[in-house]
Formats: sequence, structure tokens, C-alpha cells
Amino acid sequence: MRVNGQEYRTVWTNRSSVFMIDQNRLPFEFKIVEAKDFAASCDAIRNMTVRGAGATGVSAGYAMAQAFVGSQRHRVQSAHFWDYIDSARSNIERTRPTAQNLFYAVNKVYEAARASEDPVSAALVEAERIADEDIENCKRIGEFGQDLIKDGANLETHCNAGWLAFVDYGTALAPIYVAHRNGKKVFVYVDETRPRGQGARLTAWELRNEYVPHRIVADNAGAFLMSKGEVDMVIVGADRIARNGDVANKIGTLEKAICAKEFGIPFYVAAPTSTIDSNCASGKDIPIENRNEDEVLFQSGRTEDGRVENVLVCAPGSMAENPAFDVTRAKYIAGIITEKGIIKPNEREIIKILS
Amino acid sequence: MRVNGQEYRTVWTNRSSVFMIDQNRLPFEFKIVEAKDFAASCDAIRNMTVRGAGATGVSAGYAMAQAFVGSQRHRVQSAHFWDYIDSARSNIERTRPTAQNLFYAVNKVYEAARASEDPVSAALVEAERIADEDIENCKRIGEFGQDLIKDGANLETHCNAGWLAFVDYGTALAPIYVAHRNGKKVFVYVDETRPRGQGARLTAWELRNEYVPHRIVADNAGAFLMSKGEVDMVIVGADRIARNGDVANKIGTLEKAICAKEFGIPFYVAAPTSTIDSNCASGKDIPIENRNEDEVLFQSGRTEDGRVENVLVCAPGSMAENPAFDVTRAKYIAGIITEKGIIKPNEREIIKILS
Repeated sequence: MRVNGQEYRTVWTNRSSVFMIDQNRLPFEFKIVEAKDFAASCDAIRNMTVRGAGATGVSAGYAMAQAFVGSQRHRVQSAHFWDYIDSARSNIERTRPTAQNLFYAVNKVYEAARASEDPVSAALVEAERIADEDIENCKRIGEFGQDLIKDGANLETHCNAGWLAFVDYGTALAPIYVAHRNGKKVFVYVDETRPRGQGARLTAWELRNEYVPHRIVADNAGAFLMSKGEVDMVIVGADRIARNGDVANKIGTLEKAICAKEFGIPFYVAAPTSTIDSNCASGKDIPIENRNEDEVLFQSGRTEDGRVENVLVCAPGSMAENPAFDVTRAKYIAGIITEKGIIKPNEREIIKILS
Repeated sequence: MRVNGQEYRTVWTNRSSVFMIDQNRLPFEFKIVEAKDFAASCDAIRNMTVRGAGATGVSAGYAMAQAFVGSQRHRVQSAHFWDYIDSARSNIERTRPTAQNLFYAVNKVYEAARASEDPVSAALVEAERIADEDIENCKRIGEFGQDLIKDGANLETHCNAGWLAFVDYGTALAPIYVAHRNGKKVFVYVDETRPRGQGARLTAWELRNEYVPHRIVADNAGAFLMSKGEVDMVIVGADRIARNGDVANKIGTLEKAICAKEFGIPFYVAAPTSTIDSNCASGKDIPIENRNEDEVLFQSGRTEDGRVENVLVCAPGSMAENPAFDVTRAKYIAGIITEKGIIKPNEREIIKILS
């Protein structure tokens, strides 16, 4: 995607370092962060410098490859080579528990290296292949998904499943971008997506860069807009999809899905098949990350004179609870838009598309 | 209620001035504002120095009485007396469109003055009677409502329908206070209630003052907590209740009600009968206030060094939409807790309780 006239991926590598758009500084500052080893990449994933299912996955794949490169730099003895790698792998896998793409990418890179006589090169090649695959998948999701968007449609989206959440294009936003470029009139209600505000900060920023008409709304406004006939379709991303079609995604997704069902509005999930975890029989098996209460208690924003301040927005002394994801049962979902086509959220169609 | 060891009402009068706890400064600063004439009271209602159905209503009643007092001070000629009063009345009624209590109080004060040979005194007496009635009603709501709260219950509430939203005690929080004082173990999930954060700022502040265990949650977390069996009952206030039992309340109430129904969790509305508008056949007739988009785009909070700053929390240049209320259809509501008892939200029971 273009930012200030230049093409960017959300995350990329030069072999030893991983470079990422610092999503904690957006939308107020556009800055690239360099993670010089896998530990730095782990920190960036954990503190959400990079976030979103696909971008987290690709970063984790790069981090796994960085561990292989690091083993050379640190002159790890061959007898300890796989111990070093296995320990790095488990560090990467402990950064964030919910997004399947992270485990998918780490595993792919690890297995490619395992199967090769030159594990370092094989890891790098595989990590890069996953990044390219991510882009290709998102493009296809955009094409399949745009068929669902009628000219003049009002859409609602939650969190950010745009290009910042992947390497490029995005999932939930990809069909919107394609529809918009094809000349369809589209309008997007952007849920602000508390506590971290990925909708208000990232999705709105992306849509503005692409000149897609939109308004930010408090998460509370969804059902009201739906009840007024203001929403024709809801489209969101996914962090993990279970074999039965249950979907884990950003906290609040479940509320929108239940309300959409109540008002007869189609609710679509857009995600590459790498988001499907065939080991999870249902959403009950998906681990949900609890994040620090400070994400609820404090909000960062820009002051009138341009500083970014972190301010307390709650009653001093009160505590908060901060589940980061929820699970939307398959019954609320009209369809899953994948790179291989649109499927119904049930085991039969999911197993078929994976084979 | 006690604040810093002293008893306070949310709003009170000394005949010419109306005094209010400045709710825009809470929870960071406890300050009393003096509105010296009805125009100043109108400003305070409009900018939400005072807010909440009951407190807005009582303030509006006081403002109406202030207009009568002001007519003396301004030596309004008797030929123009009722023109002056009618104009003041319509100014007060234009401050905020949704809460029924405002129209109830203004009308009561006006009619009492109309029927009296000493309209100024009659207005003051009636305005004070409404304030006392508000307290008495809230006490009774607390008693009736606490029967619904089981020992060990986890409750969820939206916005602030505590004592700050009334003159004292509150509606949705009154049963919680009574249950807590009666020794029942209760825990409250407090929806932060974006965009203005009345839950995070006011409800949490009240509950802390009363030592009621609670946690603030992002509005997005409601359905997730319900799906996990963490919520036994939802209880909210109301800004206007239609004859058929539809309820207008703070934006986001509808989402909670739909989700509660989906998970089989009882959803209760607590409100005095003065909140019922028998002229509204259904929720469709209730006007919904749209407020300034800046309430979504900016958040005010306290910096580390104790200043209160208003910071931009959205992508610069993006716009927002800010409906302040929504309408919850009667079918989602288990019951309405009034000062006369708990009723079902239907026309038969509503007409009966009003008679």
C-alpha cells in the first residue's frame, strides 16, 4: 500500500533484521521499527508494534528465520543447534496465544528448515514465501469478497483487518478496497474497537489513505445503526477459525455478530485458510488472551500541541478486565471469505477447502 | 450520598441559584458549579455538567423555577409575564431531547405555577417536591430491585444510573447498593460506556465510594462475559419509556439487551414512573439525540502529572457519528423496576401503574 507516495509492506526482512511499521505510533506518526534479532521481534509482537492475524503470523515466521540466522551469528555449536532453535520457537509461540497464523507460520518455517540440509537458507526462503502467500491470499479474498458488496452498500467493520493487519491488502478491508476501485459506491461504519482503538486509529487511517468514505462510531452504536437499517453487511477478520466454523476475533466481534443476526444483516468473516486451525474442534478450544488492564484504564492520544500523551480515562483506583478476543459461534456467520472462495462455516466445507 | 465524608445531593437550589456536582470534572476533580439563572442551568444541562435522567429532570425543574424567580429580578411586566415564562420553558425543553424526566419536571413546575395565585412560590415548591420525590422513588426502586439480586450475583450495568444520574441513590445502582448494604455478595461489571465513559468515570467512582467490588470492561466485552456465564443479570436505567414498554437509554443498551436475551440472562430496566411517556406509543416515537462528533474523536483524561487533557484518539481527519441513545424493544426486557413495584414491559401493566 502507498503511504506518503511510497509503497510499503506492513512487515519485511533483510535477512538478519525484521522491519515493521510501528502500529503503536499510528495514526499520529508513521515510523519503521527494526527488530535486530528474534527476541526483539518477539517483543514487537507482544507489545503490538506489529499486530493483526496475518502481520503477526508473517512476523513470527520471520522471527523463526531470525533464530536460524542468529544461530550462525552466535556460533551455536551443532550439537546444541536444535535445542537453540526449539527454545526460540517456544519463545515466539508464547508471545500471543490466540492468532492461528502465528503458529502456522512458525511451524511452516521450522518444518522447512528441518527438512533441508541448509536449514538457515530454507527458513529464510520459507518465511519469505509465507509473506508473499499472505499478499496473494489477501488479493484473492478481495476479489471473492467484492462480489458480496452491492453498489451503494453501507458496511460495518470491527477492529482492523486491513493491510496493516496483514502484509498488504488485508482481509475484511480487501473486498472494500476492490469494490471501491471498481467504482462501486461504498460507505463504511468503523467501530472504534476499544480498548486499543484499532478501528478508530488504523482502519480509519487506511480508509482515509484510500479515500473510502467512512465514519468512526463508538462500539456501542452498532445495534442502533443496524436497527435503523443503516448497515447492509458486516465484515470482519479472524484470528483463528475452528473446524466447526466458530471464529475467534477481536473482542466485540461476538456482539456485532449476534446483533447482525437479530436484524437479519449478513455477517461475513474474511480470512485466509491459514487462519483455520483444524486441531480445534470448536471455538471452546481456542485460547483467549487476557491483556493488561491498563489498555482499558488509559488511552493514548494527541494533545492540541502535538504531543502523544497516555491519559487515565477511568475512576482512579478502579480496576479493569481486558479479554482481547471473543469467539463467535458459526451459527451467526453468513460465510467465510477465503483465498479459495466463499464457504459456509461448517466442518464439511472447512475440511473440503483445506484438502 | 457521602463524598469525602459529607452528604451531597447531585443537584440542589437556594431559590435563585442551582448548584450541581460538575460531572464533566469527575472522577478527577470534585467540584460544585453554581448556575445563577435559568440560562446558566440550560447550559449546564446541554454540556452535561449535570446528566442522567433524574438529575437532568430535577435540574430542568429548578431551571423552570429559576425563570419565575428571574421574572421578578428582571421586573418583567405582568402583561409579558407568561410570554417570558413560555419562552424560558421552550429554552429549557430544547436543551436535550431524549430524557422524559426533563419534560415531566418542566411541565409539573409550569402547571403548578399556572394554577397558583403566587406562581413564583408555587414553582419553587413544586421543583423542590420533584427533587424529594426523585429521592423517595429511587429509595423504593432500590428496595424492590434488591429482591432480584441473589447473594453472590455478578451484575453488568451500562452507563451511569447511579446517584449522580438522580438526586440521590440512583435507579440501576440503587438495588445494588441496597443488596450490598444488606450483606449480599455482589460483583459488578461496569461497561465503560463510550463515547463519554459514564461507566468508567462515574459508575466506577460511585461503586468505589460505596466499596462495591467491580471491574471496568470495554463495552465490547459484554457478550464475551455473558457467553462465559460471568453475568447473572443486567440492570440499566432509562431516559424514556414508551407506553408499549420500549426503552430509550444510553447508546449501547440495545446491544447488551440483545446479547442478554441470546444468552438467557435477565435484563432489567430501573426507572421511576416519571420516565414513562404515555404519549409515546412505542420506541419509534422517541427522539434520539445526536451529539457532537468530538465526543468520539477526543477523550479527556488525567496525565501522569495530574493535568486533565483532551486528546485526539482517532485517525486525524476522519469523522465520527455520535448517536447518544438507542431504543431497546420491550421484548428484550425482563422487567421494569419502578417505585411502585416491578412490572412487565407491556401497555397493560404500564397503563395500570400510571393510574
